[in-house]
Amino acid sequence: MDVDAAVFDVFGTMTDWRSSVTAELADIGGRAGLRADWPAITDAWRHRYRPVLGRFLSGELPWQPLDDMHRLMLDEVLAEHGLNALGKAERDRLVRAWHRLRPWPDASPGLELLHKTPVVTATLSNGGVGLLTRLTKQAGLRFDCIMSAELARSYKPDPQVYLTAAKLLEVEPRRLLMVACHPDDLEAAAKAGLRTAYIPRPLEWGPDADPVDPPAEVDLVANDVIDLAGALAGTRTNEG
Amino acid sequence: MDVDAAVFDVFGTMTDWRSSVTAELADIGGRAGLRADWPAITDAWRHRYRPVLGRFLSGELPWQPLDDMHRLMLDEVLAEHGLNALGKAERDRLVRAWHRLRPWPDASPGLELLHKTPVVTATLSNGGVGLLTRLTKQAGLRFDCIMSAELARSYKPDPQVYLTAAKLLEVEPRRLLMVACHPDDLEAAAKAGLRTAYIPRPLEWGPDADPVDPPAEVDLVANDVIDLAGALAGTRTNEG
Repeated sequence: MDVDAAVFDVFGTMTDWRSSVTAELADIGGRAGLRADWPAITDAWRHRYRPVLGRFLSGELPWQPLDDMHRLMLDEVLAEHGLNALGKAERDRLVRAWHRLRPWPDASPGLELLHKTPVVTATLSNGGVGLLTRLTKQAGLRFDCIMSAELARSYKPDPQVYLTAAKLLEVEPRRLLMVACHPDDLEAAAKAGLRTAYIPRPLEWGPDADPVDPPAEVDLVANDVIDLAGALAGTRTNEG
Repeated sequence: MDVDAAVFDVFGTMTDWRSSVTAELADIGGRAGLRADWPAITDAWRHRYRPVLGRFLSGELPWQPLDDMHRLMLDEVLAEHGLNALGKAERDRLVRAWHRLRPWPDASPGLELLHKTPVVTATLSNGGVGLLTRLTKQAGLRFDCIMSAELARSYKPDPQVYLTAAKLLEVEPRRLLMVACHPDDLEAAAKAGLRTAYIPRPLEWGPDADPVDPPAEVDLVANDVIDLAGALAGTRTNEG
């Protein structure tokens, strides 16, 4: 497959948001004297994400930074689980836990391998530019560029997000590869004209989660980012 | 000086555009059987840049990608110097010479040192996002993020360019450092509320050029990017 650039989903595909956020919830909650099933709180927080995205995509909610969305969802989850004792500073710190996610073990070495190929790499996430810049810096994820749905003032799976990334990177959509562990992200990317690569992340929702069905049609399936780098190593780009 | 992020001018401050573009002109022109004072052609090309920027900033010209602007200026310069024999493919390749500029020797090691500090680094150039992504990748310039005047659909020294970078990086302007070898870039950044660091590049216009006067007021003067990294090593950022 010959592509000029590859863009990567971040929450789930490159980073283990569940264990990272759970650790910060347990730490911050524990220091506030609270006890809870912290992994369940993390899951409840993340489960609110898609419905809120849907309300934005239907036009019901205006665009807002992901941090603000995370804060709203957190407030609701804490109220539901009787954790109202957490104050403003603690909630702010929890929202920023999404800026400090731990990468999957293959993500950083895989990106270093890709950096040596002519294929340009970038994030393509619903996280904002600032969030993604800090996250990738502290996680040691070497991308060539930071792309965010924020630059289209929208969210995936809006086709404008994928097309804005192609336009800014100056590549044709059919020479841009979307890499994700979420079938719906890849389906939307394919509809926008991009090529797609699936990386399974069976531990995204923890060891006891139901298995995810792989997407019906993708251009490439890779075991992880290192495997993907191997598959793209012989890529011919349009660069002189 | 405590800042959260530092943004860098690229053409001149991080890369030696003059020797890079001259080498490609001499190569492409020579293979077309042409002879010319190639450094003078490069200088003539670059000298057209500021007047064209001025025409955009005054509202006379619409915004267009830097590549398109480079192509227009190149066509004019080649016509003026009797070099019309260069064809479309060769002109396209010359425009892309600006995507392949060589870094100054201190730029890459300086950025690696800065990468280890909590200060976020980004480009901030009139080059487009695609251009800057390819340039920094091939030159081995490790920035944490690619910022471009294109994201404000404007050009430096329009204050919106500096303020858009601050907004996207989620830093206050007074905690954002503009690094450049051009006094007018730093003066415009300071007017927009940013902090400023001057790095002299006495060889920017070649060994015989007149010396550049340093800017009247800056927050920091560094010999090169390695020196700048040393000055910022103890920086306290707002990151937890």
